[in-house]
Amino acid sequence: MARVVVDVMLKPEILDPQGKAVHGALPRLGFEGIADVRQGKRFELQVEGEVTEARLAEVHRMAETLLSNPVIEDFEVHVEGVASGKHRA
Amino acid sequence: MARVVVDVMLKPEILDPQGKAVHGALPRLGFEGIADVRQGKRFELQVEGEVTEARLAEVHRMAETLLSNPVIEDFEVHVEGVASGKHRA
Repeated sequence: MARVVVDVMLKPEILDPQGKAVHGALPRLGFEGIADVRQGKRFELQVEGEVTEARLAEVHRMAETLLSNPVIEDFEVHVEGVASGKHRA
Repeated sequence: MARVVVDVMLKPEILDPQGKAVHGALPRLGFEGIADVRQGKRFELQVEGEVTEARLAEVHRMAETLLSNPVIEDFEVHVEGVASGKHRA
C-alpha cells in the first residue's frame, strides 16, 4: 500500500478569492512579509499494491477527470513515502 | 522570494465526507484499486526575502492560528524550490 498525492491548484491566471481572503487576514493577525497566498486542494490516495508507471498513469487520469477541472486548475501527482516529520497539532 | 507550502489534512480519526465521496465516485468512473481517499487543503505562500528558521516558525504560527483548525486538522510546512515537472493541463 502506497500513498499517492494529487495537488490541485488554480491556474496562475485564475483569480483565487480564498487565497486573497487568507492573504488579507494575515496582517490583521500581525503576520507580515507574505507577498501572496494561493489556496488549493490536496488529495491523498491509498493505492493498493505497488505503484507502477501504469498505476501512476491511471492516477493522472483520475486527476484529469474527477479531482481537477483542467480548464481552470493545474495538478501535480507525486508518490509519498512513509509520512515523517508530520506535524501533529 | 520563496514559496512555502502548508498542507492541511483532517486528522486520521476524523471522518472525511469529501474524501469518501471521491472514493465512492472512482469505481463508477471505472477506476479500481484505490483503498481510500482523504481530501485536504494546500496553501502556497510567497514569502518575501529569505526563508530563515524564524520565518518558518512564523509560518507555523500562521498555520496554527489561521490556516488550520488544530482540534481536527494536522498540518505540514515545507519549503518548495522552483516548480518543476508540474503538470499544466
